[in-house]
Amino acid sequence: MVRVDRIRKDLEFLAGITSTPGEGVTRLAFSGEETRAREYLRKEMEAAGLELYRDNAGNLFGRREGRLKDAPVVMFGSHIDSVVHGGAFDGPAGIISALEAMRVIKEQSIETSLPLEMVIMTEEEGGRFGSGVWGSRAMAGRVSREEIFEGRDKEGITKAEAMRSFGLDPEKVRDAERAPGSIRAFLELHIEQGPILENNGKDVGIVESIVGIRTFFVTIRGKADHAGTTPMEFRKDALVGASRVFSEVDTIARRSGKGTVATVGMVNVRPGAFNIVPEEVHFSIDLRASSEEVIEKAAREMKRFLEDQCSEQGLEFLWEERLAVPPVNIDPTIRDVFVQVSEEKNISTHLMASGAGHDAMVMASVAPVGMIFVPSRNGKSHCPEEWTDYEQVAKGADLLLGAVIKLAG
Amino acid sequence: MVRVDRIRKDLEFLAGITSTPGEGVTRLAFSGEETRAREYLRKEMEAAGLELYRDNAGNLFGRREGRLKDAPVVMFGSHIDSVVHGGAFDGPAGIISALEAMRVIKEQSIETSLPLEMVIMTEEEGGRFGSGVWGSRAMAGRVSREEIFEGRDKEGITKAEAMRSFGLDPEKVRDAERAPGSIRAFLELHIEQGPILENNGKDVGIVESIVGIRTFFVTIRGKADHAGTTPMEFRKDALVGASRVFSEVDTIARRSGKGTVATVGMVNVRPGAFNIVPEEVHFSIDLRASSEEVIEKAAREMKRFLEDQCSEQGLEFLWEERLAVPPVNIDPTIRDVFVQVSEEKNISTHLMASGAGHDAMVMASVAPVGMIFVPSRNGKSHCPEEWTDYEQVAKGADLLLGAVIKLAG
Repeated sequence: MVRVDRIRKDLEFLAGITSTPGEGVTRLAFSGEETRAREYLRKEMEAAGLELYRDNAGNLFGRREGRLKDAPVVMFGSHIDSVVHGGAFDGPAGIISALEAMRVIKEQSIETSLPLEMVIMTEEEGGRFGSGVWGSRAMAGRVSREEIFEGRDKEGITKAEAMRSFGLDPEKVRDAERAPGSIRAFLELHIEQGPILENNGKDVGIVESIVGIRTFFVTIRGKADHAGTTPMEFRKDALVGASRVFSEVDTIARRSGKGTVATVGMVNVRPGAFNIVPEEVHFSIDLRASSEEVIEKAAREMKRFLEDQCSEQGLEFLWEERLAVPPVNIDPTIRDVFVQVSEEKNISTHLMASGAGHDAMVMASVAPVGMIFVPSRNGKSHCPEEWTDYEQVAKGADLLLGAVIKLAG
Repeated sequence: MVRVDRIRKDLEFLAGITSTPGEGVTRLAFSGEETRAREYLRKEMEAAGLELYRDNAGNLFGRREGRLKDAPVVMFGSHIDSVVHGGAFDGPAGIISALEAMRVIKEQSIETSLPLEMVIMTEEEGGRFGSGVWGSRAMAGRVSREEIFEGRDKEGITKAEAMRSFGLDPEKVRDAERAPGSIRAFLELHIEQGPILENNGKDVGIVESIVGIRTFFVTIRGKADHAGTTPMEFRKDALVGASRVFSEVDTIARRSGKGTVATVGMVNVRPGAFNIVPEEVHFSIDLRASSEEVIEKAAREMKRFLEDQCSEQGLEFLWEERLAVPPVNIDPTIRDVFVQVSEEKNISTHLMASGAGHDAMVMASVAPVGMIFVPSRNGKSHCPEEWTDYEQVAKGADLLLGAVIKLAG
């Protein structure tokens, strides 16, 4: 069995490694905080009998050999970087679960056919260079020279410079790429970052799919007019048109069902004076669903509504697709292993979609993947209040442990 | 008859007195530009046989005596200050019409029973110290010591300091107040700043009322959540609630009719990230109508809709009344004089409400007032494109001239 006291000690220690003490965890990629966190983890991983190595993207691995030589590996882990003023569990919950699983495997001298590797992924959040899931993308061969040599953080430091100061050679990132078939399974435990498990009173979530994301930026243009002297029938009020779109985006998401969500989060109204009719409204639509068909249909409905509204009210618009990430299906055999193990261990589960992207989403292009969610108190994440009880992390870690052993045979 | 060539020459000359040449007229109150404009007007007013004097608020008067001693005066004029990057007609159209009327009265040696005064009001726009209709408020006894000694412009200069550099004693502003009954009528010609006259193809507008203004600032508060991981049914999206209010504000204004207008012009959405459900939306409602009952009813309907929306969606709100200016009724006898004169002079008219506040609105508390509107091309104002054909100004000036002669007997 995994031990809650060790999980607690590890998570509390990592929570203290932040550049914003008292104001949540800030541990940016390639930073001094990340280095200190890794020093702690290196020692713990070595104590768990693992052989450490690092790839050229900065991902840190702890390997335990299996009975079979040159066999594909069962890999599991998460990330250690955070957003600015984030929480103590987004990333570390998965790292410490993996570490604790490795400890138990050593303590119980469990032999597996396949080798095991726990992994600390680099720069999942993208909080520093604006390009997230970096470590997993490097393993999937999906990084560009531009982001390495041209992207800069707030201080003007390029990712290449940050990598060098981390002892990495930015010219060799491509070496991190993994060959197809070399990873038998990639498993990630992560906090849910939403309210579903808490509301259902379940111990863990077994992820069936990671939602696809479509992001649109829309501009509606009307006419700026004096709010006092322009009768209603002469107006082309960009905000009146936009407000109906905002409302309809919500309605379409609810009607689409199957966990579809849509959000207008960013809104700019110009000129923005209380006594001038709005000339232009610029806003974002973030649309997510587990199936590409549902996304396509919802996006079409939103755009058609926008077109109708604008033509009805004499407004112009610009519809721009900014991001399109397809949904990822979780490997059903891995999902079934999770279900089986959780039944054996009497852990209550909820089959669900992941509404956020994770390293596992990227890894799905090089390996069968599986994801375990543990509950987030009040659904909160990316803030200092982010919380999961240590006992809840331990239940997830226990499920991870059982699944790793089963998959590695 | 008034002469278009002189009106044109005057307006073109004033248009050139701006601190932002090539980018519209910027002629702030108590500025060097205002001083230069007044120097020109002083000469022209003297040439029109007027006796000049200035009150302690800075209002400049040009007086022509009538046959009766100590009789109430017929006063007419407008302002000479502008907004930043404003137009050449908002204010000057009324000033130059008044000047041209005085010239014609002199040329034709017209004798009136009552004395006549044209007036150049100070700081109508409030573009510099943020407190508009200053000159008329001083005449109505509605200025405060705070705005004189504490309000500052962008450079940190108080109004008191600006007044001193203009040769005025800020301690004596109260002397500008006019006794009840001392003004027989106050007439103002102004550009419409809206599209109604142009759309109706009428020469001038005769204002029947100046709308009342009610300004509300509303805050709707929900819950910030991750846009991917928070199912629709768990959200408290402040923008979804707000968007329905935006739309309903428009609907209520249209349903209220009688020229009611309502505008949501200023909107702030927080935190404002594309992947976070909006926690808070702060916005303005500007509501105007000619009758206090209509305003009251519309405001009640808006607030009730807001309450219903928020309680339905679990949102909180704050409803703040920021400004309440009651509607002003134009003196019906003056309106009738305008109608009569326009029929005699074959000037086509449209009876209408003024959707914006003007000096005449304030003067209504000390004298019967009347207002003439001349058309604004494309309804535009407070921008460099602001335009009224000189012939259109002349028609309005001709109506003003006739009405002044009739009212002064």
